Amino acid sequence: MTGGPITFYYEFSSPYAYIASERIEALADRHGRALVWKPFLLGAIFKHTGAGPLTEIPLKADYAGRDIERTARLHDIPYRWPPRFPFLSVAAARLVYWAGEERAPDLTYAFFRAAFARGEDLQRSETMLAVAEAAGLDRGAAEAATRDPQIKARLADETDAAIQAGVCGAPFFLVDGEPFWGCDRMEMLDQWLETGGW
Amino acid sequence: MTGGPITFYYEFSSPYAYIASERIEALADRHGRALVWKPFLLGAIFKHTGAGPLTEIPLKADYAGRDIERTARLHDIPYRWPPRFPFLSVAAARLVYWAGEERAPDLTYAFFRAAFARGEDLQRSETMLAVAEAAGLDRGAAEAATRDPQIKARLADETDAAIQAGVCGAPFFLVDGEPFWGCDRMEMLDQWLETGGW
Repeated sequence: MTGGPITFYYEFSSPYAYIASERIEALADRHGRALVWKPFLLGAIFKHTGAGPLTEIPLKADYAGRDIERTARLHDIPYRWPPRFPFLSVAAARLVYWAGEERAPDLTYAFFRAAFARGEDLQRSETMLAVAEAAGLDRGAAEAATRDPQIKARLADETDAAIQAGVCGAPFFLVDGEPFWGCDRMEMLDQWLETGGW
Repeated sequence: MTGGPITFYYEFSSPYAYIASERIEALADRHGRALVWKPFLLGAIFKHTGAGPLTEIPLKADYAGRDIERTARLHDIPYRWPPRFPFLSVAAARLVYWAGEERAPDLTYAFFRAAFARGEDLQRSETMLAVAEAAGLDRGAAEAATRDPQIKARLADETDAAIQAGVCGAPFFLVDGEPFWGCDRMEMLDQWLETGGW
């Protein structure tokens, strides 16, 4: 099969994006599609949509907490709540762009698993840098990169580009111009790629 | 199999609830579960959650419109946008409680199909009453019922009860104490009933 890549948009503080990250590579492989890894800042989307973290919204909070844990169990994905939630993920997201496309998948797994499989606090700089170092980055260079104006601008630009592309939440997938929002649209995405759409 | 009923919470102005309504009876039948039909006023939930109609939210509007049509096509469910959207569904919801449990399913199908399969304007009293009459209700009695203080109170009470039960959007399903929110949780609901949960 051939076709364009699947662009995977995600925010490190999103539990559903974490769950999606553990499933997207197998899905892309099944259909012979490449993956493009695009962390972005969900807070910038919230400014447009007026939404906020699910776990801070009356009525939705209880449901979302339960649904996240249930969805992880369904897919046999380990799940722990980080000590702070939601957390500021800007430094981690910057490092993915700094590390480059080749290292993006492994670095993404490393950050997501630290936060949601082991329940570590990625908002804490020391913790985040230790995860980056364990994933193969030079710690000192990585620390500097999180403050580099060019890297900062890159993440801001990528977030703007995501908004321009219609990204309205996380996780979000775009393939052959077709958008899919949510961990719970991955079955539909799978079916879309299988059938060529409907 | 035995077990408690599936309570189906819905708002007549919700396209996803319409799609769910066309699929829920087959799902319940597969698992030998009864259905309890509970229309409610989504606007009352929005007051708690701060959410609003998807089609009025920047970024989400375009996506939601596309996703609704795509989801209907996937399930071979006819779909047309009503002339006003969202629309006030309070009178239709009141009539479901007035008509009683036995007539609730057919009346629900009649209202949803008028709005979303034929694109009729249920907010218009004449249209709504014509649909109710075609579904077997006495038109004069139905018209009076929409203004009956007891029926009004019933819908308000049912909406409050839905909020108490944790309903945070539409459609919403509750079975054996387990909540499922969204047309896109019906596969998980199906799997939950099949396996007894996980």
